[in-house]
Amino acid sequence: MPTLVLIRHGQSEWNQANRFNGWIDTQLSETGKKQAREAGKLLQDQELHFARAYSSVLSRTIMTVNRVLEELGQAYIPQVKTWRLNERHYGILQGEDKDVMRAKYGKEQVQTWRRSYSVLPPSSAGLSKTVTIDGRVYPAFDHRYAEVPYGLLPKSENIQTTEARVKPIFEEGILADLKQGKDVLVVAHGTSIRALTKLVEGLTPEEVTKVEIPNGQPILYDFSNDLTIKQKTVLGD
Amino acid sequence: MPTLVLIRHGQSEWNQANRFNGWIDTQLSETGKKQAREAGKLLQDQELHFARAYSSVLSRTIMTVNRVLEELGQAYIPQVKTWRLNERHYGILQGEDKDVMRAKYGKEQVQTWRRSYSVLPPSSAGLSKTVTIDGRVYPAFDHRYAEVPYGLLPKSENIQTTEARVKPIFEEGILADLKQGKDVLVVAHGTSIRALTKLVEGLTPEEVTKVEIPNGQPILYDFSNDLTIKQKTVLGD
Repeated sequence: MPTLVLIRHGQSEWNQANRFNGWIDTQLSETGKKQAREAGKLLQDQELHFARAYSSVLSRTIMTVNRVLEELGQAYIPQVKTWRLNERHYGILQGEDKDVMRAKYGKEQVQTWRRSYSVLPPSSAGLSKTVTIDGRVYPAFDHRYAEVPYGLLPKSENIQTTEARVKPIFEEGILADLKQGKDVLVVAHGTSIRALTKLVEGLTPEEVTKVEIPNGQPILYDFSNDLTIKQKTVLGD
Repeated sequence: MPTLVLIRHGQSEWNQANRFNGWIDTQLSETGKKQAREAGKLLQDQELHFARAYSSVLSRTIMTVNRVLEELGQAYIPQVKTWRLNERHYGILQGEDKDVMRAKYGKEQVQTWRRSYSVLPPSSAGLSKTVTIDGRVYPAFDHRYAEVPYGLLPKSENIQTTEARVKPIFEEGILADLKQGKDVLVVAHGTSIRALTKLVEGLTPEEVTKVEIPNGQPILYDFSNDLTIKQKTVLGD
């Protein structure tokens, strides 16, 4: 019977530095690399043979997948790396210090941008063609998005819009694999995992805003053959 | 204009321990991991944007690809992991100490098995269904070969037979990408890279037996648009 494992990537350099990541391609911190290896070790006793591993196209999820699969001795499995599993695009907040933004816009406003299901942070439209941060270019000029239709590239996202672009890869990829009885690994981000959790568990918008996803702790869903959830387990809790 | 980069994986634990690897899935040694990162750093100045990365399904090439791409900031590219780029299957030599085999069969015989284009080492047929080494099972029972038709799984290989199974992925994958003007990264093994070198450079069987491929040194082929070789460069030489 199929098992779905969701893992939020290990701590990134900017999680550590208290900055909004969003689509900006930061690396795992040393702590993040350890968390990723630890997640792989936690899965060693589960007797899972993953048929496929899904991640975003951002380094912090791929660096996590690499370490999880190396620890599991399953580095050979096919990988799907898709922008649809990216972290939400944080609009003008991307790259900014969280405390600086709270001071500028107010604590409550920033919290609303962070956690509201449907409120969008101010968009970085207009800026998006020219802005670079730490030498890294914004989506439109980044090779990793070369194959994505320009109109699909977001300039700001909330949980709702993230869920909308996660849904196709969930249904056509992840769910299709599970329906064939295969074990699937997904490494994604805070918001894209919230969206997946909503889709898997059938949560309401209200419920999904309250879901907390810690870095590097594997969330296991054991399904029966008709894909009802038999058990949900969080490892390393 | 397209560039093909070939890299032999970093040193494995069994390269270090003087044992024949073949298809047995050993990990990179600490030296091997450093060599892989170093190969990635050597490529940073080359302004390459890889469209795809090919490797075998053995951990030592995938661990090398992972580190090369992480260093390059190109972890997001699609990967092809295929048994066709595996090291040659070494028959009964797999897992054995090189000096012990020389003492048992004679130095000259072992050298012939290692370097002859067309002589096959004794096959591990018959053994192949039950033998495990260090707890690792032989090809037929290994998940990574589940999709490969059983009749294609070798029990012993030389350069010639390795070349024959490398050729389809070279022509339908690597060469097809290059024809579209794309840069391609291939991380493979001593013998599968010899086979690729023969196919790329049009070497004779005699010539290919003399090719030496050091671990972790990127070999760059710059092609003109009609895919004639303009320049061959070995980095870190």
